Amino acid sequence: MSKRSAGQGGPVKAILFDAYGTLFDTHSVRDALEAAFPSQGDYLTQIWRLKQLEYSWLRGLSGDYKHFGEVTRDALRYSLCTLGIVISAERLETLVCAYNSLCLFADTLAALDSLAGMRLSVLSNGSPVMLAALLNNAGILDRFEEVISVDEARTFKPSPHVYRLACTRLNLAPEEILLVSSNGFDIHGGSHFGLRTARIERQSAETLRTKLWRDPIGPVEMFAALRSPLEYLSAEPDLTYPTLLDLREAILTL
Amino acid sequence: MSKRSAGQGGPVKAILFDAYGTLFDTHSVRDALEAAFPSQGDYLTQIWRLKQLEYSWLRGLSGDYKHFGEVTRDALRYSLCTLGIVISAERLETLVCAYNSLCLFADTLAALDSLAGMRLSVLSNGSPVMLAALLNNAGILDRFEEVISVDEARTFKPSPHVYRLACTRLNLAPEEILLVSSNGFDIHGGSHFGLRTARIERQSAETLRTKLWRDPIGPVEMFAALRSPLEYLSAEPDLTYPTLLDLREAILTL
Repeated sequence: MSKRSAGQGGPVKAILFDAYGTLFDTHSVRDALEAAFPSQGDYLTQIWRLKQLEYSWLRGLSGDYKHFGEVTRDALRYSLCTLGIVISAERLETLVCAYNSLCLFADTLAALDSLAGMRLSVLSNGSPVMLAALLNNAGILDRFEEVISVDEARTFKPSPHVYRLACTRLNLAPEEILLVSSNGFDIHGGSHFGLRTARIERQSAETLRTKLWRDPIGPVEMFAALRSPLEYLSAEPDLTYPTLLDLREAILTL
Repeated sequence: MSKRSAGQGGPVKAILFDAYGTLFDTHSVRDALEAAFPSQGDYLTQIWRLKQLEYSWLRGLSGDYKHFGEVTRDALRYSLCTLGIVISAERLETLVCAYNSLCLFADTLAALDSLAGMRLSVLSNGSPVMLAALLNNAGILDRFEEVISVDEARTFKPSPHVYRLACTRLNLAPEEILLVSSNGFDIHGGSHFGLRTARIERQSAETLRTKLWRDPIGPVEMFAALRSPLEYLSAEPDLTYPTLLDLREAILTL
């Protein structure tokens, strides 16, 4: 556990969770992909997620918006196409739907339990349909006051429009909200906008380094290399913790 | 050579080249990196470029602009940090400067020769200082009417503001300009804005596929996997060619 700074201002009035990669493990589609395409499960899992994020940023920046369900499908089509794999539209939809049944991380339920009674919400790139299915399938929809999809702003994280939407929906000032995310770009965008931020780093920079010095490195390590906790963007999180379980204590320090 | 569509409208009045990855080979920093960090040249080259682009998109989308020289330095610092490599500020600057002495692709000079007499310009993410150094070092600065840096728009490709800037500087309508790029995101953004587009695909999807079915795949293949010619974004290029040498003929068809 490390605290980079104790933050500033009054108490936090609401906690805003990122979904994909923070509450839910996006890599839990791996077994379905490996079963469908033996020996390519790791590769497809990593390229799919990397490309999904990349397409969200490119659509956000270019202004050519499509909702995240379509972005997710496009990213899977791309991933399969790099290997020359052709499948039916029906089979493609089955695989895309795996994103609506992602596994919770091991610490998610206990962390939500420990924060019961606080104002908890979700702010996610997911479309409203995806988020409803995702949270319902995991049985945690009723834990949240608001489930906010970026779709209403017709752009993606880390656009300031997305974080402004969350402030409007929660009727709070930016500094009254703690954004909790494992995604460095989300922490950067939220912090640049003025939210308080807590980054969950389930894999430390040190653990990553030992993996990257192995030769050769595969798709899983390349993904980790691109999504490591070491971002050189301007904004630092107010708090950094290895698991969601540390959040309750964290909030008391703010 | 394949033509996806012959384009529409009147003749093309100017050609707008992307620089990094289109005229210049960004992977030509590999030898300098391998000499400095034996056995890690490929890994560092790929992560540096992937992260450089990623940071440009994230800064564009979040509105937290820094010029491309700083983005390039941040991306190199990130790449070294994933391996736990610490170097002096002076040594870091020497490596960053390698981006100002990139090699031209083998077809670049001959292609520029074949287009002599036409209005040729550059539109690049590079800062004005970087672009002046890059084009000067390669001896091709005098080939271009305008060298347009995105810095004037304080955002990055594929923001529409960048393509609008080019139209203003060239005093032409979007459909009078042919954007030439190897970068799928650039083709998508330019096409969405209304430019005519020609994508240069030096590596075919078929070649890529044969590499990706090898096991294990390394950093070079992972980069290729993420930057393959197979983008599932909305806009298709008007033209697709394997080398810049086909451009002269291409323009006659438009």
